[in-house]
Amino acid sequence: MELLLTYDVSTITPAGRGRLRKVAKLCEGYGMRVQKSVFEIVCTEPELLTLIDKIQRTIDDDEDSIRIYKIPKGSFRTVQMLGTARPLPHDDALIM
Amino acid sequence: MELLLTYDVSTITPAGRGRLRKVAKLCEGYGMRVQKSVFEIVCTEPELLTLIDKIQRTIDDDEDSIRIYKIPKGSFRTVQMLGTARPLPHDDALIM
Repeated sequence: MELLLTYDVSTITPAGRGRLRKVAKLCEGYGMRVQKSVFEIVCTEPELLTLIDKIQRTIDDDEDSIRIYKIPKGSFRTVQMLGTARPLPHDDALIM
Repeated sequence: MELLLTYDVSTITPAGRGRLRKVAKLCEGYGMRVQKSVFEIVCTEPELLTLIDKIQRTIDDDEDSIRIYKIPKGSFRTVQMLGTARPLPHDDALIM
């Protein structure tokens, strides 16, 4: 399945920047970082459960916000981009 | 249609913070700000064209990144949330 994960974390503090780095590393195991705190993820349902478990043990529940949207297959290719945004080459075999 | 708009802008500079404020104001005309730089938008195709036009005249093309994902109806309700993330009450009449 394809997911869009957005992470709202204050990067004013070193601790916040550290959590963003850790969440980015977790997400990059399943997809691509397309913006500072937006990740396009391709994974299976069990992988998602593992990812969520790891994220929950990383974020600050009282400070950070994470939203995970299930999106239709192919949405990573049809995204509309403005400014410096660029399409990123997911592994086709994973997406199709 | 339902859209997810994500905006990557450096908020280190006052100019960047100003652009984020302006884009937020534009997006809030069509939906809700669910994270600092993530907007859930409900609009028609012509409204989207108008919104994109206004955004393009606001952002810095060399600095900022905007991604707009078309998502299936109802995705705003099925989003998975961690930490402080909360569902936000879009006008049902607009969504269904």
